[in-house]
Amino acid sequence: MDIISRVMDLKTSLKQTRLKGKTIALVPTMGYLHDGHLALMRQAKMDHDLVVVSIFVNPLQFGPQEDYQVYPRDLNRDAELAAAAGVDILFTPLVGEMYPRGHQNMLTFVDVHALGERLCGVSRPDHFRGVATVVAKLFHIVEPDGAYFGQKDAQQVIVIERMVEDLNINVKVVAVPTVREADGLALSSRNIYLSSAERQAAQLLYKSLDLAKEKLGAGERDAAVIVSEMRRILAVEPLIKIDYISVSDPADLAEQKIIKKTALVALAAQIGRTRLIDNMIWRESAGVNSGADQFAG
Amino acid sequence: MDIISRVMDLKTSLKQTRLKGKTIALVPTMGYLHDGHLALMRQAKMDHDLVVVSIFVNPLQFGPQEDYQVYPRDLNRDAELAAAAGVDILFTPLVGEMYPRGHQNMLTFVDVHALGERLCGVSRPDHFRGVATVVAKLFHIVEPDGAYFGQKDAQQVIVIERMVEDLNINVKVVAVPTVREADGLALSSRNIYLSSAERQAAQLLYKSLDLAKEKLGAGERDAAVIVSEMRRILAVEPLIKIDYISVSDPADLAEQKIIKKTALVALAAQIGRTRLIDNMIWRESAGVNSGADQFAG
Repeated sequence: MDIISRVMDLKTSLKQTRLKGKTIALVPTMGYLHDGHLALMRQAKMDHDLVVVSIFVNPLQFGPQEDYQVYPRDLNRDAELAAAAGVDILFTPLVGEMYPRGHQNMLTFVDVHALGERLCGVSRPDHFRGVATVVAKLFHIVEPDGAYFGQKDAQQVIVIERMVEDLNINVKVVAVPTVREADGLALSSRNIYLSSAERQAAQLLYKSLDLAKEKLGAGERDAAVIVSEMRRILAVEPLIKIDYISVSDPADLAEQKIIKKTALVALAAQIGRTRLIDNMIWRESAGVNSGADQFAG
Repeated sequence: MDIISRVMDLKTSLKQTRLKGKTIALVPTMGYLHDGHLALMRQAKMDHDLVVVSIFVNPLQFGPQEDYQVYPRDLNRDAELAAAAGVDILFTPLVGEMYPRGHQNMLTFVDVHALGERLCGVSRPDHFRGVATVVAKLFHIVEPDGAYFGQKDAQQVIVIERMVEDLNINVKVVAVPTVREADGLALSSRNIYLSSAERQAAQLLYKSLDLAKEKLGAGERDAAVIVSEMRRILAVEPLIKIDYISVSDPADLAEQKIIKKTALVALAAQIGRTRLIDNMIWRESAGVNSGADQFAG
């Protein structure tokens, strides 16, 4: 596995790859890799000849009060995990390589309006603009055939898919199912922040999604009923502060009152000082796909 | 010359071009071609193996009160002119091809903040967002090595250059000097709107820029003095209503009070119901480049 930190070096290397007729996959991450990321890499390797994993904690997608400075980083460990997963190139740019004028001096942003303002966008107003912008940059640098994202970050997947469609970007976006701990907790680099009591409490997030699935399976279609049942489960645990629970149309994230054929049940909660998200997509008859933290800064 | 109206057909054709190792230039236009556009095409043909000219009157860059519906269109004449200029492919998508969900349902926009809000951005608030977004789409569809824009639309050039830099887009942006009538009037598809009295009046726009050049050549560095001399020339003609006269830094369009080494002197004026723009870039010692209407919807 090559570790490359310069944009120009990466482009030179990938030009050779392309000349040989090989296909390229990109897995954008913020590092501190876990099994969710590794699932993305393995899927990317199955589908393509060469896999590039980017590790970049993108300042543009963090709010001023958020955890940009303390976001966990361990490049040596990440490099070992990526190499073992079959990754060909680890792209590890410094901030000055991605934002040569400084990220504060970026003037150009890609914004997926409406989609970026709902759900997590309410408490993180510039987050998805930062995500869409850095992902557009990475797409232009790598020019991948396929790009892999974790379903845990459902809203991110929907924003990126719509950006690719609206801007005619030549890449296939692939969403990979969420990888979970034995008790259901979705893997996230931020789980490292949790104390043992908080970690214990955090399993209720999945339990509440599981209850929503059960209710939907039993025929319940009133979103308010489902949300209130989920709140009831989470209310048991004083360590959990709900940011939102949302039942929306996975196509455009519009809230649904009466659930039709498909629904994204998504939630965000503060557990201590850690903000976690999780979700499941429910489809009539087809059942449930529950969605790997990777890029959700 | 091939005329292609489908995105998929254009991509298929260009894939073959690229496999042969040929380079590709893109000249984005809104059609109703004039000598300014043709200068772009000839320059593109000198620099590259294959030239694609797009003709697309982009609804996204027109304000609600602007001339989108009546913007002049003549595809047959345009096709003859482009073929004679050596163009290889004329790309003529319908609106539904560029915006399959309808342009009103676009959620993703590329916005070059600050740069898009100055000069013409004041009276045309969403214009440069519409331009940057459609140019990003065309760049993704064509994947050109070089893209050619007229210096007449100075602000557009600066917005596109900055977008390409900020988003790591793989294209060389080339600005081509403005082509003018014998009396100095910059060529523009909108000149067709002018009555003969208005056409007569319109020559003063260039005269005022010429005076600014003279003053700068004589050592004047106070922007307010230059602007007031320009206003004095234009005030003679009651048919002219000035929108703005601006002396700015061509790097970031920030207004300059005391002119340093380089300045963009730019103006917009309403002549009857027609809005025209023009500009010149002045550089100390190096003299003046005066800047082809092409894409300035």
